Amino acid sequence: MKSVKVGICGLGTVGSGTLNLLQHNAQLINPRANCEIAVTQVGARRDNPNCDTSDLQVSRDIFDVAKNPDIDIVVELIGGTTIARDLVMTALDNGKHVVTANKALIAEHGMEIFAHAEKCNLIVAYEAAVAGGIPIIKGLREGLAGNRINWMAGIINGTTNFILSEMDSKGRKFSDVLTEAQEKGYAEADPTFDVEGIDAAHKLVIMASLAFAIPLDSSKVFTDGITKLDPQDVANAREMGYAVKHLGIARQTDKGVELRVHPTLVPKNCLIAGVDDVLNAVMVNADAVGTTLFYGPGAGAAPTASSVVADIIDVARVMNNDPQTWVPALGVPTSGIVARDIVDIQEIETSFYMRFSALDQAGVLSTVTGIMAGAGISIEAISQKEQPATEEYVDVIILTNVTHEESLDAAVEQIEQLETVRGQVSFIRVEHLDQ
Amino acid sequence: MKSVKVGICGLGTVGSGTLNLLQHNAQLINPRANCEIAVTQVGARRDNPNCDTSDLQVSRDIFDVAKNPDIDIVVELIGGTTIARDLVMTALDNGKHVVTANKALIAEHGMEIFAHAEKCNLIVAYEAAVAGGIPIIKGLREGLAGNRINWMAGIINGTTNFILSEMDSKGRKFSDVLTEAQEKGYAEADPTFDVEGIDAAHKLVIMASLAFAIPLDSSKVFTDGITKLDPQDVANAREMGYAVKHLGIARQTDKGVELRVHPTLVPKNCLIAGVDDVLNAVMVNADAVGTTLFYGPGAGAAPTASSVVADIIDVARVMNNDPQTWVPALGVPTSGIVARDIVDIQEIETSFYMRFSALDQAGVLSTVTGIMAGAGISIEAISQKEQPATEEYVDVIILTNVTHEESLDAAVEQIEQLETVRGQVSFIRVEHLDQ
Repeated sequence: MKSVKVGICGLGTVGSGTLNLLQHNAQLINPRANCEIAVTQVGARRDNPNCDTSDLQVSRDIFDVAKNPDIDIVVELIGGTTIARDLVMTALDNGKHVVTANKALIAEHGMEIFAHAEKCNLIVAYEAAVAGGIPIIKGLREGLAGNRINWMAGIINGTTNFILSEMDSKGRKFSDVLTEAQEKGYAEADPTFDVEGIDAAHKLVIMASLAFAIPLDSSKVFTDGITKLDPQDVANAREMGYAVKHLGIARQTDKGVELRVHPTLVPKNCLIAGVDDVLNAVMVNADAVGTTLFYGPGAGAAPTASSVVADIIDVARVMNNDPQTWVPALGVPTSGIVARDIVDIQEIETSFYMRFSALDQAGVLSTVTGIMAGAGISIEAISQKEQPATEEYVDVIILTNVTHEESLDAAVEQIEQLETVRGQVSFIRVEHLDQ
Repeated sequence: MKSVKVGICGLGTVGSGTLNLLQHNAQLINPRANCEIAVTQVGARRDNPNCDTSDLQVSRDIFDVAKNPDIDIVVELIGGTTIARDLVMTALDNGKHVVTANKALIAEHGMEIFAHAEKCNLIVAYEAAVAGGIPIIKGLREGLAGNRINWMAGIINGTTNFILSEMDSKGRKFSDVLTEAQEKGYAEADPTFDVEGIDAAHKLVIMASLAFAIPLDSSKVFTDGITKLDPQDVANAREMGYAVKHLGIARQTDKGVELRVHPTLVPKNCLIAGVDDVLNAVMVNADAVGTTLFYGPGAGAAPTASSVVADIIDVARVMNNDPQTWVPALGVPTSGIVARDIVDIQEIETSFYMRFSALDQAGVLSTVTGIMAGAGISIEAISQKEQPATEEYVDVIILTNVTHEESLDAAVEQIEQLETVRGQVSFIRVEHLDQ
């Protein structure tokens, strides 16, 4: 049995998890790979007591791994986008295949990296970059390769899903849950990447590039976070039979490709509405298969290592074959990746949930429904929340039918100017995910 | 771009669906396969007006396709296990790779077919044989290749899931829903294969062979159908927060491998409990990734074609590579497939739901709980259904903690002998699917 030499760069959570998994399951993994997967070198600034590197060559300079002539596959698990980019390019320059779990790296530098890998006849694999342990890259790229993908909608950030699940099930405030998530290690000290949807945008753009053969460019993703979400809206949604989820949505339309990450009302009877806690799930709708869903842990040492090791096995098995027979990183060669129009958020058509505070007096609802009609928006449901008799203002809640976002914005502006309405109109997009 | 010649045998629902998908999505599929996938011949006893074969060589004898020297890949979509087996073996003898959607064929003759394919250096691919359009074979075999699979639990028969969904949501009787399912084309005129769990057993044994590297042998699967399921039990389950699903379950334990298909109570908050109608889903629990779920349409022309075409693309891409670099049909070469003990159903440990009719008088519950304690079974919950005051008998419902099936059987026998108990004890296995 031939031996394939692997060098792991980065011995943090995922790096140590990967080393542990390769060591622990070697007897299962080697026959599946039809070769011995031998980790021979590790590059890390410091040791990690959670794994055993006693039999390995340990280098403090990760670039030693990328340049080691005995290494076949470099596994990049250092994170970040600057040194990681240099490391991956150096590994490719030195003839190494690359496996990475780095979503930011792929989202920001993927086109350059994949093109360079193609030129060097090397593989760059990145299953672990999206949705942790869920084999969604392989599912999209190979499992659904006969399909035209219509749309994808994913819970692809565990931190925001944990926060939303807590807000939904316990009526808690965003800031309180965030503090708990930070204490539990689910959220970073600076949670911006997660709660503002930047991390989800990285993952979304990777899936969209793969599904639609468009260039990786996360600057094109409309991103709205969950920081301003009011527990009252989450509770109202629940009463109406919806869950609020922070979804990454990519869709092919006649106008171009929609790429957006935002809080979304999803009907409770939709499977993805039941995905709680730190778990991830991606719905994929395609012309032949219809709607599928891939669910599982989106982060953590062992789940992420599961995907990293799956990539290592794939690369080890096929690395000596004709590169023309490899599955290209984005499903087709980079020469087949073509930019397409990205639909402006104003142009997107969806339903909306709206809430505002209005004087509890005759004529207000009539004025509001008149504004909605004038903006060309049809209303699916409208209700007033019951308030104590002493309250002058009541909450008005509206569910619209499908409309243009710009129509909604126009209506919101007019409603906010009414003397009978106090403060701002909250609104959240609604997706039924049924076609 | 090289051309790969495909011959399709069988032009029924899946055959015509496959031809249509290959024709309709050729512009997407060929770049992904990095070759032209050219269907050049079709073998079918009669034409199918749902597809266009005007540019193709059409043979009434399917064996013409298997022997045609110009064909690279034979796609077996005729169903059944006798002629289909001959066809596949003939195709292999004539140097053709094979793609099949035939679960019965793989479950019954898979070992012989895979061994012969290995000897001939040919590929036999069968993604469509399990769970239709869901890429579960690829997910298990490649996506989770770094893992030790602990257990799988799947809704892998759309017909029974449709019937159970209707019984659950509308309180209907099995026989009524079956008639409707037959009218809608969801169930065969002879529904035995579906409702008795034979079809599910075929799919389960395929997944289990792959996950645990054990021989394909569906005779080893304990199979219990849904024909005797009482709507009252489905309703009781719902009241207690459970759905009744017809699950195929495979699990590695210290005693061996469990292989069983039976009606199962699943907690409503478990994602798979929300999989209704004709849809399929497979939960996979593994040591590194934890619990994942793969969901989608388990049957139908286009979804099944989605998986058949994914296999064709895979085979077309790698067929000229060194066979040692192919993913083996069962994850490892057939020489690595080793028989293991299959746990007798009596030895299985699970929780149970029980219902029986008892005289509404003091002392009955005490006698019953005494019997349960004597059998070593601890009770999680016990309740009496409220009945009209005129009724002499009441329904008693028990949820047990985890116990051996043989202990349960002993307790059931004693309870049925009580003079205060009328008729038989219904019982249904309960799985929490949480570890």
